[in-house]
Amino acid sequence: MARTVLTSGSKEVVIGFDQPFTMIGERINPTGRKLFSKELRAGNYWRVKKEVLAQVEAGAQVLDVNVGVPLADEPAIMAEVIPLIQSITDAPLCIDSSIIEALESGLSVYKGRPLVNSTTAEEEVMERVLPLVAKYDCAVVAISNDDTGISEDPDVRFEIAKRIVNRASDYGIKAEDIVVDPLVMPIGAVGTAGTDVFRLIARLRNELGVNTTCGASNVAFGLPNRHTINNAFLPMLACSGMTSAIVNPLDDGLVSAVRAADVLNNNDANCANWIRHYRQPPAEGEEGGRRGRGGRRRRRST
Amino acid sequence: MARTVLTSGSKEVVIGFDQPFTMIGERINPTGRKLFSKELRAGNYWRVKKEVLAQVEAGAQVLDVNVGVPLADEPAIMAEVIPLIQSITDAPLCIDSSIIEALESGLSVYKGRPLVNSTTAEEEVMERVLPLVAKYDCAVVAISNDDTGISEDPDVRFEIAKRIVNRASDYGIKAEDIVVDPLVMPIGAVGTAGTDVFRLIARLRNELGVNTTCGASNVAFGLPNRHTINNAFLPMLACSGMTSAIVNPLDDGLVSAVRAADVLNNNDANCANWIRHYRQPPAEGEEGGRRGRGGRRRRRST
Repeated sequence: MARTVLTSGSKEVVIGFDQPFTMIGERINPTGRKLFSKELRAGNYWRVKKEVLAQVEAGAQVLDVNVGVPLADEPAIMAEVIPLIQSITDAPLCIDSSIIEALESGLSVYKGRPLVNSTTAEEEVMERVLPLVAKYDCAVVAISNDDTGISEDPDVRFEIAKRIVNRASDYGIKAEDIVVDPLVMPIGAVGTAGTDVFRLIARLRNELGVNTTCGASNVAFGLPNRHTINNAFLPMLACSGMTSAIVNPLDDGLVSAVRAADVLNNNDANCANWIRHYRQPPAEGEEGGRRGRGGRRRRRST
Repeated sequence: MARTVLTSGSKEVVIGFDQPFTMIGERINPTGRKLFSKELRAGNYWRVKKEVLAQVEAGAQVLDVNVGVPLADEPAIMAEVIPLIQSITDAPLCIDSSIIEALESGLSVYKGRPLVNSTTAEEEVMERVLPLVAKYDCAVVAISNDDTGISEDPDVRFEIAKRIVNRASDYGIKAEDIVVDPLVMPIGAVGTAGTDVFRLIARLRNELGVNTTCGASNVAFGLPNRHTINNAFLPMLACSGMTSAIVNPLDDGLVSAVRAADVLNNNDANCANWIRHYRQPPAEGEEGGRRGRGGRRRRRST
């Protein structure tokens, strides 16, 4: 049973088949956000802090940290941002960069055991990322594409994931520390995008014994009413055995769909987390009501 | 591959693994509805007509018809209501009664091939319902409880379903004409209610080759924010291989979750049904816009 253990200085989050689905918050990422990019370049991190607090409050258990800004010193920014984030949250982090020096820079200052995002099966990438993962004894996201690109054939994607797991093993990295992203195609273009991934998740779980993750929102690319597709997709992924996803935790509908999937997958003992988040406020004057800090209410999302 | 073929005079609906999920509308049912009961007893069927039109409009492919009112002549009401409904919709019907004479009365006037709701594995019930199903060559919902009641053990429920399938076979009823209701427990009481059913559906599909159905809303009984649990449960059921459910089609969130599951299960070719229902209205004055009758819009449900 794969248990990917991530820690901060003071908190442990386990990604696993018998665990609540792990939501990895995606919002510390300046891609396509002009102001955020400008601020990062200027060493102004107020928005990073804001996104940290908002995402943790909304239910993200792990936060992805991507500070990739063109023409900026990404390793330097990463070295500043990681301690800053760890000073305001105990959520474990996912250090996300396509630049190996930025990954190493983040890893060198990180307190605990983070997730590294990511390696692919591209030879050059594996050769640079896997030694780093081994050196810092952390976990890594493995994206199932290689030097030939992304295959539409899920069985090819499985073989590519297997190749990463095998190669990682040469570096002493265990399968349980690899979180495979099987790659989700847009369903508007590839009708089997959903069923392929459901089958692929089961194979990755049963044959490789690895945890899985994905950027789930890609599936509905180009379709109207995308949110509703995503809110159905996450429970279906969880039902197929996916154990984490990189999501926007500020999307209430999506978070509640994930929490509902936890209940239905028997990963929310006594529905305690569900009840804590969604119980109705007591009527005015009723006894036993929780008020104030402890009694956070959410609007029903549907 | 199980294909349960239901027909009206002019329309065929197939429940099957490669078909859109079949929503069986539950609203023609006076249980717990005082006015509806009173009207039925008085032979006033305006509400029946209203529920027919509303449910078909909302997306139900099949309509359950239950006219069980205490102290009323249920067979007589059934004999009046079935032709009335068939005069205003071409959706196939599910004739629902615990009174064998009411089932027979409905069957005798029905045009086409309906679903009968239901038999259990109780000896007396099978002996009365199965000959009727054979006589009228229709399909039947098989509820997996027997004379000893409802077992919490999903493997026992599987064996009970198997017993019904075997007994039906003695009457010449094929497995593909049996739609098993594996019985969903409330998850607030039985933490494994979801995972039990997901596994049970797979067994029923793979080992017995039968279609499945359920009254899905029971799962969230007693929990807050029930709708969100139901809206996650349906896609998870569909992902596990369930092929139909008895639902309230006037619940927009639930219907859109089911349609999203169809897209993700590759049972909505080219996402055509999805796009037809959820595409955005064109901006004012834009060319190519559909207006009026054909251009029904739905509010995003999340």
